[in-house]
Amino acid sequence: MAGLGLDCLFGESILSFAGRALDRVGVQFTTDTEVRCSVAAVLLVTGILCIAFGLAMAIKRVVLAVRPGYGGRIADAVLNDSTLRRGPSVVVIGGGTGLSTLLRGLKQYTSNITAIVTVTDDGGSSGRLRNELGILPPGDIRNCLVALADTEPLMEQLLQYRFRCGSGLNGHSFGNLLIAALTELSGDFELAVRESSKVLAVRGRVLPSTLSDVTICAELIDGSIVRGETNLSAQDKPIRRVFIEPQDCTPLADAVEAIGEADAIVLGPGSLYTSVIPNLLVRQLTAEIAASRAPKIYVCNVMTQKGETDNYGVFDHVKAILDHSVDGLLDYCVVNDGRVSEPLLKRYSEMSQHVVRDDSKRVAALGIRVVKANVVSETEVVRHDPIKLASVLMQLIAEIREAQEPKPTVRRFVCRMFRRREYIRS
Amino acid sequence: MAGLGLDCLFGESILSFAGRALDRVGVQFTTDTEVRCSVAAVLLVTGILCIAFGLAMAIKRVVLAVRPGYGGRIADAVLNDSTLRRGPSVVVIGGGTGLSTLLRGLKQYTSNITAIVTVTDDGGSSGRLRNELGILPPGDIRNCLVALADTEPLMEQLLQYRFRCGSGLNGHSFGNLLIAALTELSGDFELAVRESSKVLAVRGRVLPSTLSDVTICAELIDGSIVRGETNLSAQDKPIRRVFIEPQDCTPLADAVEAIGEADAIVLGPGSLYTSVIPNLLVRQLTAEIAASRAPKIYVCNVMTQKGETDNYGVFDHVKAILDHSVDGLLDYCVVNDGRVSEPLLKRYSEMSQHVVRDDSKRVAALGIRVVKANVVSETEVVRHDPIKLASVLMQLIAEIREAQEPKPTVRRFVCRMFRRREYIRS
Repeated sequence: MAGLGLDCLFGESILSFAGRALDRVGVQFTTDTEVRCSVAAVLLVTGILCIAFGLAMAIKRVVLAVRPGYGGRIADAVLNDSTLRRGPSVVVIGGGTGLSTLLRGLKQYTSNITAIVTVTDDGGSSGRLRNELGILPPGDIRNCLVALADTEPLMEQLLQYRFRCGSGLNGHSFGNLLIAALTELSGDFELAVRESSKVLAVRGRVLPSTLSDVTICAELIDGSIVRGETNLSAQDKPIRRVFIEPQDCTPLADAVEAIGEADAIVLGPGSLYTSVIPNLLVRQLTAEIAASRAPKIYVCNVMTQKGETDNYGVFDHVKAILDHSVDGLLDYCVVNDGRVSEPLLKRYSEMSQHVVRDDSKRVAALGIRVVKANVVSETEVVRHDPIKLASVLMQLIAEIREAQEPKPTVRRFVCRMFRRREYIRS
Repeated sequence: MAGLGLDCLFGESILSFAGRALDRVGVQFTTDTEVRCSVAAVLLVTGILCIAFGLAMAIKRVVLAVRPGYGGRIADAVLNDSTLRRGPSVVVIGGGTGLSTLLRGLKQYTSNITAIVTVTDDGGSSGRLRNELGILPPGDIRNCLVALADTEPLMEQLLQYRFRCGSGLNGHSFGNLLIAALTELSGDFELAVRESSKVLAVRGRVLPSTLSDVTICAELIDGSIVRGETNLSAQDKPIRRVFIEPQDCTPLADAVEAIGEADAIVLGPGSLYTSVIPNLLVRQLTAEIAASRAPKIYVCNVMTQKGETDNYGVFDHVKAILDHSVDGLLDYCVVNDGRVSEPLLKRYSEMSQHVVRDDSKRVAALGIRVVKANVVSETEVVRHDPIKLASVLMQLIAEIREAQEPKPTVRRFVCRMFRRREYIRS
């Protein structure tokens, strides 16, 4: 019908196909331009509306066929989806609350996220599942999955839900049970995490740094050895170094590949010795990070952590990372310069936690560019703010890219498009 | 481009829009029909291919936006989906394995299924959750959800997975834990079941017959009273009558509505006194079934059940249902006439289970039409065969409909289309 309208508008001959069709339905055709134009406009608009309506219904049909009960706005979903797919590939390495905070922010900017997560937890629900079922501790991975989830809020709440009664059930997180059941079913922790991602409609990937059953151990300042994350967090002597047992664990192939393809690699925030460094103790992973041409950015913690990083400055954090990996591993270090309110500081100091000393000049002397920004969240706890932190990181990544890459040509643009497409497919 | 092709084929005038456009790109236009036709065909085919490709890509984009990671064939999904949506509205009432067997077959024919399920289970994982968390027993509902699920096989396996170790976890079914966690989270069993349906992409609905915490009790032949499903199944005296406590429980509004809108109501197969009849003891539900104009079909069990239906014939089954509801409740009774192999019969007789005696003449005398068909499955257990049973039921429903409804007119067809659409929306 739209075609008929166009025909009517432009075709001068009554003998044309459209003309004859109109003649047949009885429209008196004159050379009077006004009449012609009116008929044309009506036909054109009606036709376009029909096409649009038909398409909309067809698409709705398809959506309901592949995802029954879908209630969101399809147009928004597609627009959002295609913007996020074009975001840079970011590999994020860490564990604990810090990493999930970062992921919550990052997913607003890109869906090309790979989170590489430590699996050395041995306390709580994770620890019980690890001991009783002999699977890897699922807690940190669950937190990251939920942070990256693109599903209904109830689904998120479900995964984080802890049973509050029931003998044996009490204290277990439902998300941990999901990963445990899938692991038992498929006999494969990695597959279990991948399937959980599907259930949660996770945009991006969450990978354990290794599939080996590793224990984090620490040599303290007095030479004594502490084994296990829970024991490590419970003691309060300064840590000389940490190591994992067994030492010869291998990383996942997918993690290695993601690092190779990354536009940026972000370490932290999170517990220095129990969340960030354990990943770097998987040697092949560290070698891949060092070999990657992507900028490596460390996000330093805002507060010190009792028993782990008492009296630490930014430099001590950076030094610990370099000591446990290789010199020159880091290119950038993001340091908070936002203020934490006095009452909060007082409350934290009662728990022997203080603001990490800003001695970033010493960091800069190592050849690491320090990026200072207000990335702190002002709630009843001191945390990184997901959006502030992600926006600082994305800006930094964009700046680095611009500085490195020459002005885009059509050929380069096309190449990049195809590279991205492959990434999405995989 | 397709439009251009059509124009080129039919428009006799070189002055028309299409003609001018072609002139501009340099195609020599002659009145030679062969040249005209070739150009037209090429343009037409290319245009159609372009449109089809564009549409396919657009639809794929939409699908991936609303369901990331979707790997199925979209065209098949849509075709299948739209066929099933046009199927008749069937309400299925019962519980246990029998009901889920029936649902597995029925879902191949229609997605307009409402399963109304008994919640009187008090053994196993369901019983433990009922006692420890104080929620309704989720087991029977979980089985139905899985039977109706339209999701990956792994998801089905997951819901049916039972933890085999872990103190307190051991023996719990993951699907039961899902419903339990959702119930605790939302504080609402009904909502929990609905949300579980979403996760499993269930086509149709599964509803508990009541939200009250009811116990099934039996008065035995000797006048003694037995309380609870587990105790009832464990004893072996003939049952005089069953009742529920408390007696004044109300059905779900959705269940009542589904019965009112049903094209057919199917009772059974399944344990007579512990799966089928408990639903009929919810009085308002029985009243709604009796009042409905839809045909009511009872699917009689193939084998007797020890302690419940020893020595029962088809008539005894039907009589028990009528005695516990109202006379004239049933219109049809499906009786198996397929043979069960001798070795199987011998094995069952060792467990005091025998083929249900076919005394269907007495059933017919009650004014109930008996439908005999081979609906038995030939595996190592005697069960109804999902597909055989569903196909017999669907044929019966279609026959009844044809006999009742006059030949369709255009007006009636349109009316029915709109009615269906509303159903789908709700």
